[in-house]
Amino acid sequence: MERIDVGVLGATGMVGTRLVRMLEGHPWFRLAEVGASDRSRGEALGRLVADDDGGPLWDEAAKMVVKSVDDEYTSPILLSALPTGVAKDLEPKLAKAGHLVVSNASSHRQDPNVPLIIPEINPDHISLARKQIGKQGGAIITNPNCVVAGIAMVFHPLHEAFGLEQVVVTTFQAISGAGKPGPASFDMIDNVLPFIAGEEDKIGNEVRKILGKVTERGFDNPNIRLSATCARVPVLHGHFASVSLAFRKQPHVDEVKSVLNGFRGNVIQDGLPCAPARPIEVMEAENRPQPRLDRDRGDGMTVTVGRIRPCEVHHVKMFVLSHNLVRGAAGAAMLNAELCHARGLTARPAATAQR
Amino acid sequence: MERIDVGVLGATGMVGTRLVRMLEGHPWFRLAEVGASDRSRGEALGRLVADDDGGPLWDEAAKMVVKSVDDEYTSPILLSALPTGVAKDLEPKLAKAGHLVVSNASSHRQDPNVPLIIPEINPDHISLARKQIGKQGGAIITNPNCVVAGIAMVFHPLHEAFGLEQVVVTTFQAISGAGKPGPASFDMIDNVLPFIAGEEDKIGNEVRKILGKVTERGFDNPNIRLSATCARVPVLHGHFASVSLAFRKQPHVDEVKSVLNGFRGNVIQDGLPCAPARPIEVMEAENRPQPRLDRDRGDGMTVTVGRIRPCEVHHVKMFVLSHNLVRGAAGAAMLNAELCHARGLTARPAATAQR
Amino acid sequence: MERIDVGVLGATGMVGTRLVRMLEGHPWFRLAEVGASDRSRGEALGRLVADDDGGPLWDEAAKMVVKSVDDEYTSPILLSALPTGVAKDLEPKLAKAGHLVVSNASSHRQDPNVPLIIPEINPDHISLARKQIGKQGGAIITNPNCVVAGIAMVFHPLHEAFGLEQVVVTTFQAISGAGKPGPASFDMIDNVLPFIAGEEDKIGNEVRKILGKVTERGFDNPNIRLSATCARVPVLHGHFASVSLAFRKQPHVDEVKSVLNGFRGNVIQDGLPCAPARPIEVMEAENRPQPRLDRDRGDGMTVTVGRIRPCEVHHVKMFVLSHNLVRGAAGAAMLNAELCHARGLTARPAATAQR
Amino acid sequence: MERIDVGVLGATGMVGTRLVRMLEGHPWFRLAEVGASDRSRGEALGRLVADDDGGPLWDEAAKMVVKSVDDEYTSPILLSALPTGVAKDLEPKLAKAGHLVVSNASSHRQDPNVPLIIPEINPDHISLARKQIGKQGGAIITNPNCVVAGIAMVFHPLHEAFGLEQVVVTTFQAISGAGKPGPASFDMIDNVLPFIAGEEDKIGNEVRKILGKVTERGFDNPNIRLSATCARVPVLHGHFASVSLAFRKQPHVDEVKSVLNGFRGNVIQDGLPCAPARPIEVMEAENRPQPRLDRDRGDGMTVTVGRIRPCEVHHVKMFVLSHNLVRGAAGAAMLNAELCHARGLTARPAATAQR
Repeated sequence: MERIDVGVLGATGMVGTRLVRMLEGHPWFRLAEVGASDRSRGEALGRLVADDDGGPLWDEAAKMVVKSVDDEYTSPILLSALPTGVAKDLEPKLAKAGHLVVSNASSHRQDPNVPLIIPEINPDHISLARKQIGKQGGAIITNPNCVVAGIAMVFHPLHEAFGLEQVVVTTFQAISGAGKPGPASFDMIDNVLPFIAGEEDKIGNEVRKILGKVTERGFDNPNIRLSATCARVPVLHGHFASVSLAFRKQPHVDEVKSVLNGFRGNVIQDGLPCAPARPIEVMEAENRPQPRLDRDRGDGMTVTVGRIRPCEVHHVKMFVLSHNLVRGAAGAAMLNAELCHARGLTARPAATAQR
Repeated sequence: MERIDVGVLGATGMVGTRLVRMLEGHPWFRLAEVGASDRSRGEALGRLVADDDGGPLWDEAAKMVVKSVDDEYTSPILLSALPTGVAKDLEPKLAKAGHLVVSNASSHRQDPNVPLIIPEINPDHISLARKQIGKQGGAIITNPNCVVAGIAMVFHPLHEAFGLEQVVVTTFQAISGAGKPGPASFDMIDNVLPFIAGEEDKIGNEVRKILGKVTERGFDNPNIRLSATCARVPVLHGHFASVSLAFRKQPHVDEVKSVLNGFRGNVIQDGLPCAPARPIEVMEAENRPQPRLDRDRGDGMTVTVGRIRPCEVHHVKMFVLSHNLVRGAAGAAMLNAELCHARGLTARPAATAQR
Repeated sequence: MERIDVGVLGATGMVGTRLVRMLEGHPWFRLAEVGASDRSRGEALGRLVADDDGGPLWDEAAKMVVKSVDDEYTSPILLSALPTGVAKDLEPKLAKAGHLVVSNASSHRQDPNVPLIIPEINPDHISLARKQIGKQGGAIITNPNCVVAGIAMVFHPLHEAFGLEQVVVTTFQAISGAGKPGPASFDMIDNVLPFIAGEEDKIGNEVRKILGKVTERGFDNPNIRLSATCARVPVLHGHFASVSLAFRKQPHVDEVKSVLNGFRGNVIQDGLPCAPARPIEVMEAENRPQPRLDRDRGDGMTVTVGRIRPCEVHHVKMFVLSHNLVRGAAGAAMLNAELCHARGLTARPAATAQR
Repeated sequence: MERIDVGVLGATGMVGTRLVRMLEGHPWFRLAEVGASDRSRGEALGRLVADDDGGPLWDEAAKMVVKSVDDEYTSPILLSALPTGVAKDLEPKLAKAGHLVVSNASSHRQDPNVPLIIPEINPDHISLARKQIGKQGGAIITNPNCVVAGIAMVFHPLHEAFGLEQVVVTTFQAISGAGKPGPASFDMIDNVLPFIAGEEDKIGNEVRKILGKVTERGFDNPNIRLSATCARVPVLHGHFASVSLAFRKQPHVDEVKSVLNGFRGNVIQDGLPCAPARPIEVMEAENRPQPRLDRDRGDGMTVTVGRIRPCEVHHVKMFVLSHNLVRGAAGAAMLNAELCHARGLTARPAATAQR
C-alpha cells in the first residue's frame, strides 16, 4: 500500500516533535515536510530538537530541512501543532488551499463547522466539516484540549449509560502541557501553581461539544454543568484529574466500573494504527493510577482510571490520568488524521498542489 | 508572670519537634519534659532531631533528656504528638492522672466528651470536656486533621454568613503530613500519589463537629455534605485544597471575599500568643496562594485563600492553603493549649503530681 | 536454537525486576524460575512488582510463582540480584551445586578467584574462575558497582592508550541506585545527600581489578590512584560523574575524544544480544550528557561522555553518564551471562540438577 | 547614631530583593532609593517582587517607587545587583560621581584597582581602591562569584596554615544562582545540568585574587592550580561543592578540622552587623552538610563543611556548602558595605550629591 504524504507544522515544539516521532514507520503516512517559525527555516530538524526526552530523532526526519510556515506545502494532510495565534489565520488558508489540516491548536475548536473529535467517541462529527469543504477539498479537523482528551473519554460511555449532568473536576497538570520552555523550576520545586491561563474555561465547552450529537435538526449540545479548577504540579508528563460526577440515573459504583471496562470505542472497524486496544483501563489498586507509572499505558493512548468510589455530594468520584502529549495532543491529532484517512476525507490529494 | 510547665510527648517526631521549637521563649509555657518511644529514652533530645529543617534546637531543649512515654510526667499541660495507636490508651490515662492533654492525635477526636477545637472558630466547645474531668482535674482536648485545620477556618465564617450545605474538595498535600520518614522519593519525583490512607473519611466528620454548636439540648451537628479526595504532591510543607461550595443562601463572590477578609476569630480577647493577627488572608493575584511562597504567612498560622470565583456547579470555588505542620498540627495544639490556659482549664496544676 | 534456562534471584527488587523484563523474548535465555525472600514465596511475581516504572510485566513472567531463595533451582544460569548479606553465603552454595551464578551483589567481587567483568573491557578475566569450578561445574561471575560500570568503560580505552595514573571523581547518583524503598522524599526535595554508605571505597578497588591483567605470573593490578566522592541527587535513574584524569603520557583533548569515539569493546565477535553497538558515545553539545535525556541511549547500555576538556590540575576532565539500573546492574549481569554462555561456561547444564 | 543612606540597584532581581530585605532594620544603613530597569520605573517595589520566597516586603520598602538605573541617585552607598552588561559602564560612572559602589556584578572583579573582598579573609584589600578614588571620593568594591564566596572561606585559613597548591572542585549549584526566571523546570525534574555558562573560568581567578597579598612591591598572586567543574541541581538555594586539596605541607585531617573550627575571620574588631559569629562551621555527622538543612546557618552567612577525610590523590577532601544568595551574593555585598563603612570609606557622603 502506498503511503500518503503528511507534513508537520510547528515541528520544533513539544507536540510537533512528538508528531514527527510518531510518524517513524507509520503504515499509512509518510513524513514529507516539516514547518516551523522563520527562525528555524533552512535548518535540519535534527539540530533543532536535541533537548527532547526521546533520544535522537529517526534519521530521515533528522535530516529534513525545516520550511517556514509561510512556505508552500504539498502534502494532502498537514498535522498542525502551531501556536494558537499563528493557527488562527494560517489554518483556514491551508484548508482553503485543499489541505486536510488536522490541528491540535485551540483556535478553531468552537467553530460550528469545525469538528472537534476524539475518534473513539464521536467519529461521525466529521460530517460537520461538510460546510467547510470548498472546491479544493480541504478542511480543518481539531482535537480537544489536553485535559479534555482524557476526561471526555471517561465521560462519554458514562453519559451514554447514565446521562451525565454535573462534573466538578480539579486537575494536577504536567509541565509539558505548557510547551517549551514551560514553567520555571523556581515555580516547580517544592510548589504547586494554582493557575493555568485560559484552561478552565475551555474544558466545559469542549466536553459539551464532543459529547454532543449531530442530528437532522442540527447539533445537540448536552446539558452538562461542569466546573473545572486547573493546577500545575511538578510532573513531566501526564494530566491527572480528580472528578466528581452526578447523573440523571444514579449508577452503582460497580456499574460505572463495568461500563468503563467494557468501552472499546467507536472506531474498532476502522483499524486506526494509533488506536489503543483499550481506550480506557480501570485500575483496582487503591493507589493507582499514578502519573509516572501509568501515563505510558497503550503507548500513551490509554486513559487510566482509578479509585472509583461513591461521592458524598454527587454520585461517583474517581481519578483520571492521560498522557497530555500523546492522548492529549500529538496522539490525538494523529488518530484524527488516521480517522479522516480511513473515512475517505483525504480522497483527493491531487488537488492540494494546485493552490 | 510565672510560666506553667508543659511536656511534649512524641517529641522526636516531626510534629513533636515543631512543638519543642515553638516553646522557645514562650511567654506562658515552660518546656519541662519531653517524651518519646523507649528507643529514645535517656538520649539528649538534640541528638535525636538533627535531620530537621529548622537548624539546631535551642540549647535548653537540646540538652533535655528524653523520657519514655510510660515514665511519670509532672507538667500540668502535656502536648501530645503521639502516634494514634499509642495515644489511644495513653492519653486517657494521663488525663485521668490530672494532666491537661492537648493532643494532635486523631484517636479521641470523635469522642462526644472530647472537644475538637480550632480556637478562632469554636473556643466554647471546651465546655464539652466537663464530663471528662474527674477529681484529678485532667482532660483531653484535640485539634483537627491537618487538612481540616485549613479548610474549616474558611468554612466557618462562610457557614455563619450563608449556611454551608455542600463541599467538594480535592487536596494537594505535602509530604511532611505523612511524618517521618514519609513517602519514598521514588514516589515523589515526577509523580503524584492519589491515595492517603484514612484521610478522606476524617474530613467530613471533623468539619461537621467543629462547625457544630453546643446547645442546651446537646450538640448540634450541621447538615453539611462533604466529599473529599486527597492526593500527595512533591511539596515539603503546605496542604493545598481546591474547594467548591454551595450554600443555603447563594452569596456573591464579593460577599465571600468580604466575609473572609473581615474574619478575625473568636479569641481576640484571649490574647493567645500563637494566634495570628489574621487567621485568614485573601490573596487577589490570580496565581496565589502557592505552597512554598505562602505557607509561612502569620508564622504558619494564617490560612491563605485565593482564586475565589463563581462555580458552575455549586456557588463559589477557591484554593485554600495552610501550613500542615503549624496551623495543621503543632501550632494547632499549641493554640489549643493557650486557649485552655487562658480560659482557666489549667487552674489546678498541683493535682497533677499526685497520681 | 534451543534457549537455555535461567533463574532470577532477588526477582522482586529493583534490579531483579529489571532482569526479568530484559529476559522477555531473549534469544538465548528462557526465564525458568524466580526467587525472592520467604515473604514473597508462593505469590505470583506480577502481583509483587506493580509499582515499577516499566508498566505491567510480560505475561509469562507475571504468572510465575516466586520461590524462596532457599528452594531448589534447576537452571544452569542463575542471575543474582540478591542483597549482599544473602549473597555472601548463598551464591557459593549455588555455585558449588553446579550453577553459573552471575551476580550483581558486591559480596564476592574482590575474591581473587571470582572474575569482576565488564565484557567490553576484560572478557578474558573469565579464566580467573577456573579455580572456583568444582566437579559440578558451577562458578560465580560478578559485575562491578553501578558507578564503576560507567566510569571504568571510559577509563579502559584511555588507560590502554595513555596509561591512567590518577582519578578524582565526584558522583551525582540516582535514587534507584539505593534500591527499594530508597531515600525518603524529605531528603530529595530541594536537597542533595552528601553520603552513600560504603560506596566510595569500592570504586578504586573495583576499577583497578577490572583494568588489571591476567598474566602468566598471576594478576597484575594497575597502579592507579583514585579518589571518589559520592552524592545522591533527585534523579530517578542515571549515575552521573565528574571525573578528572592524569596519565603517564599526557594526551591532547582531541586524542581523548578520538580514542573514546573509536572504542567498540572486546566482545564484538561474540555477538552478545545485549551489547550495544557502541559502548561509549561522546556528545559534543556543551550541556550534554544529561541524566534524563541520555541515560537510555543504547537501551541503557551505552555510556555517554561529554564536556571533555583540559584540566588545570590533571590532564583532562569530563562528565560520564550511565544508566545505573541497566549498564550498572541488570544489564551488566545479563551481558556477563551472555558472555559466559558465548564462551562455553554453561556447557554442562545437566550437572546443575544433580545437587 | 544616624544611619547612612544606601540605594539598591537592580532591586527587582533575586539578589537585589534580598538586599532590600536585609536592609530592614539595619543598624547602620537606611534604604533610601531603589533602581531597576526602565520597565519597572515608577512602580512601587512591593508590586514587583511578590513572587519571592520571603513573603511580603517590609512596608517602607514595598512602597518605595522604583527609579530607572539611569536616574540620579543621592545615597553615599549604592549596593549593585545589576546584570553584568549594565554594571560594566554604569558602575564606573556612579563611582566617578562619588558613590561607593558595592557590587555583586562580575564586570570589574578582575580590574587591578578594584578590590575583590570577603571581609573575613582580605579586608586590607580595600587599599587597592586608592587609585580608583577621584576627587568626588567614589569607588567600586566587589564580592566574588557565588561559588567562590563559599570555597574561598575554607581555602583561606588552610592556605595560611599549610600553603594551598592544588584544588579540584565539582559543584552542585542551586537554581537561584541563575537569577530569574532561571532554568526551566523541564531541565530540573529528574535531571542535572552539566554546564553553567562562564562559571568554571571565574573560579580559579577569583580564588587567587582573594587569597593574594597586597605587598609593598604590589600584588602577590598565590600560585594555586584550580580545576572547577560546575553543574546545576534541583535545589532552590545553597551551592554545594566537593573539593579535593593538596598543600605545600601535608596536613593531618585533624589539623584541617582544627584550623577550620578555629577560624573567626579578620573583622571581629569591626563589629559588622551581618558578620556571623562563625564564618565556618565544621559538621561531624557523616551525611552533613545538606543544602536544605544547613544553608541557613548563621542567617545564611556561615559556610558549613563536612566529610573532611583523606584524599587518595591529593591530601584532603570535603564538602563545602554556602547559601549562594546570602553568603554568595546579597550578604556578601552587604558585608562589604559594612566593612567599607567601618573602615571609613564612606566618610564623605556630602560629595555624592554633587555630580
